[in-house]
Amino acid sequence: MNSGRSTGRCIALDAMGGADAPAIVVEGAQLARQRHPGLRFLLFGDEVQLRSLVDRQTGLAEAVEVCHAEQVIDDADKPSQALRRGRQSSMRLAIDAVDDGRADAVVSAGNTGALMAMAKVVLRMQEGIVRPAMITFFPTLAGRSAMLDLGANIECDVDNLVQFAIMGAAFARIELGKERPTVGLLNVGSEDLKGNETVKTAGQILRDSDLDFEFHGFVEGDDIGAGTVDVFVTDGFTGNIALKAVEGTSRLYTGFLNQAFRSSLMAGLGYILARPAFNAVRRRVDPREHNGAMFVGLNGVVIKSHGGTDSIGFANAVGVALDMVEGRFKERIQADLRRWAPAAQPEAEAAVS
Amino acid sequence: MNSGRSTGRCIALDAMGGADAPAIVVEGAQLARQRHPGLRFLLFGDEVQLRSLVDRQTGLAEAVEVCHAEQVIDDADKPSQALRRGRQSSMRLAIDAVDDGRADAVVSAGNTGALMAMAKVVLRMQEGIVRPAMITFFPTLAGRSAMLDLGANIECDVDNLVQFAIMGAAFARIELGKERPTVGLLNVGSEDLKGNETVKTAGQILRDSDLDFEFHGFVEGDDIGAGTVDVFVTDGFTGNIALKAVEGTSRLYTGFLNQAFRSSLMAGLGYILARPAFNAVRRRVDPREHNGAMFVGLNGVVIKSHGGTDSIGFANAVGVALDMVEGRFKERIQADLRRWAPAAQPEAEAAVS
Repeated sequence: MNSGRSTGRCIALDAMGGADAPAIVVEGAQLARQRHPGLRFLLFGDEVQLRSLVDRQTGLAEAVEVCHAEQVIDDADKPSQALRRGRQSSMRLAIDAVDDGRADAVVSAGNTGALMAMAKVVLRMQEGIVRPAMITFFPTLAGRSAMLDLGANIECDVDNLVQFAIMGAAFARIELGKERPTVGLLNVGSEDLKGNETVKTAGQILRDSDLDFEFHGFVEGDDIGAGTVDVFVTDGFTGNIALKAVEGTSRLYTGFLNQAFRSSLMAGLGYILARPAFNAVRRRVDPREHNGAMFVGLNGVVIKSHGGTDSIGFANAVGVALDMVEGRFKERIQADLRRWAPAAQPEAEAAVS
Repeated sequence: MNSGRSTGRCIALDAMGGADAPAIVVEGAQLARQRHPGLRFLLFGDEVQLRSLVDRQTGLAEAVEVCHAEQVIDDADKPSQALRRGRQSSMRLAIDAVDDGRADAVVSAGNTGALMAMAKVVLRMQEGIVRPAMITFFPTLAGRSAMLDLGANIECDVDNLVQFAIMGAAFARIELGKERPTVGLLNVGSEDLKGNETVKTAGQILRDSDLDFEFHGFVEGDDIGAGTVDVFVTDGFTGNIALKAVEGTSRLYTGFLNQAFRSSLMAGLGYILARPAFNAVRRRVDPREHNGAMFVGLNGVVIKSHGGTDSIGFANAVGVALDMVEGRFKERIQADLRRWAPAAQPEAEAAVS
C-alpha cells in the first residue's frame, strides 16, 4: 500500500521471534527499506548475530540501530511467564521502544499470546476502548476482507463487538483503501432474529448508530470466502476457529489438487501447461501477501507477523505497520467512538472497571 | 454405506421440501430404491403432483404410498409459525409417521429450523439427552469427518458438549465405519489451558470418562480440513460458522481456479488435459456425496437434505437415514450415556428441568 511516505519513520523489530529468526527479520528489514526509502529500524536481539546479519545487507547498517536483548521469548512460554520473566527480551524491549517514543510501531513474528499480553501491559488501552482485538486481512472472491477478533478475547460482550466494528472499519479504511467500508457481524443466519442476545443487541446498536461505515447486518460463515463485507466482526473464539477453518480448507484444496495432478501422465502434462494459471491462483492466496495481523485498541501500532513466514512476508508485515502509522489508525477511531450511540457509552465504561 | 439390508424398511419423505421438490424427491426415492432393494417410502405432499411423478418412474409405484398433505412449509416460515400452523404440512405429517411407527425415519430437504422444531415437539428427546444437535460429515485430507452441533443450539453448556461427543461418536461409528472413532473439542488452541470454562470443563470430563471412543483433546479450526479427528464437537454458533466458512472457501477455490483457466489459451488446454484429475477432486468435494445431516438426540431418525440438492444428493440422504436405522443409532448412544462420568449425570438431569 505504502510507498515513499516513510521518511523519518522508525519501526522496532523483535528480531528473535519466529521460526527463522533472526535471519528473515534482517532480510525482511532490508526488503522493507528498499520499498520504503528513508524507513529506519530498531533491531532488538542478540547483538553479535544481528550485526553480522546486518553487515551482509548492502546499505542496511545505516538504516538500523542494533539494540542488544539478553532474553528471547519462546513459543512455548505462557503470556504470564513472558510478562514476569521477559523484561529484557527482544519482544519486550521492542514494545518498550514504542512506549517511550523511540519507534512508531513494533513488528514481531514471535509468540502471539506473549506479544498481546506485553503490548497490553506496556502500551495500555487506547482511551474509550474496553478490550483490544486481533485483526487480519485475507483473500476473498471479491478481493480482500478483514476479520476480528481472532483470539484476543474468548468471550465478548455487546460493547466489545461494537468497538471491534469501529476498529475494523478503521483498519479497512487504511489497509484495504476503502473510503466507507462495509461491516458485517458473523452470525448463524442473516435475519435480524437469529443468534444469541449479544450478537442481536450489537447488531441493533450498529444499525441505529450513525458511524462512518456501512453496517451490512448479519453475515454467515460462507460470506467470508465470498468477501460479502470488508470487515467481519465476531468474538475471538469464533473468529479464531473460522479463520483457521478457512486456512485448513485452503490446504485441503492444495493437497487434493497436488494428488490429482500426480495421478496420471496426462494430468501432469495439463499441470505443466496450466502452471502460470496455477501460480496466479497461488499468488492470490499466498499467506505472505496477507501477512501482518494487528492488535487494535492499544496506544501504539503492534503488528504480528506469521511465525513461519519468510523475508517477503516479514517485509509485508512491516508495510502494514507503516500503513497504520501513516494512516493514523488511532486517530481514525476517535471520531467513531464519539459518534457511537452515546447512550451505550456509560455501560462501556462500567465494563472497564 | 448400506446395501441389501433394507427389506421391510420404510422411510417417510417430505416430498415438498427443497428448491426442486417434489421432482427430485421422487427421482431420489427411485434411485434409493434401486440401491436398496426392498426399501419402501411414504411420500407426503400434493397427491396429484406426486402420483404423476411416481408413475413416470418404472416400478416405483409399488414401493411407495402417496399420502396427501394440504400444506407446504416455506423456507421463509419461522419455526414457531410452522409449529402452530403447519400441522397438515408434508413435513409435519412425515415426522408424525415416524412417531406413530409407520416409518423408520424421515428425510426432508425443507426449512431446517421448522424441521428441527417439529421433530423436537413430535418425537421428543431421547432419554438422557438434554439437547438435540445437528451433525453432518464432510471431506477432509484424511478421508471424511463429522461435526456437531451445526446450529441447533446457539449456546451450549458442559453437559451439552459431552453429550454431543457421545452422539457424534455413534454417528461416526455407523456412517464413517469407524470402530473406535476419535473425537476432538474445537478450541482456540490445543493446550489444556486454552479456551473458555465450558470447553475446558467438557474437555476434562471427556478426558476422565471411560467412553467408547478416543478423546483426542482440543482441536483447532485448521484441523477440520486436515481431518485430525473423526468427530469435531462444538457449540451450534461456532459449528455453523466454521462449517459454512469451509463451504465458502471451497467456492473461493473453485472460483479462483475457474478464472485462472479462462485466463489464457495454454491454461485452457492444460485444463482439458487435466480434466479427469479435476473431476476426481470435484467428486471428492461434491456436496451431493456428503448430503444428509442428522438431528441427533431424538426418538427417531430425522435427516435433513441440502435444499438445493438433486436426486443423487437426495438418494444419498435417504442412504444416511437407512444407515442410522440399520445401525441402531439410538441404542448405540445408551451405553455411553450410562458410562459417562456418573457424577455429572444429576447435573445433566437438572439442566433439563
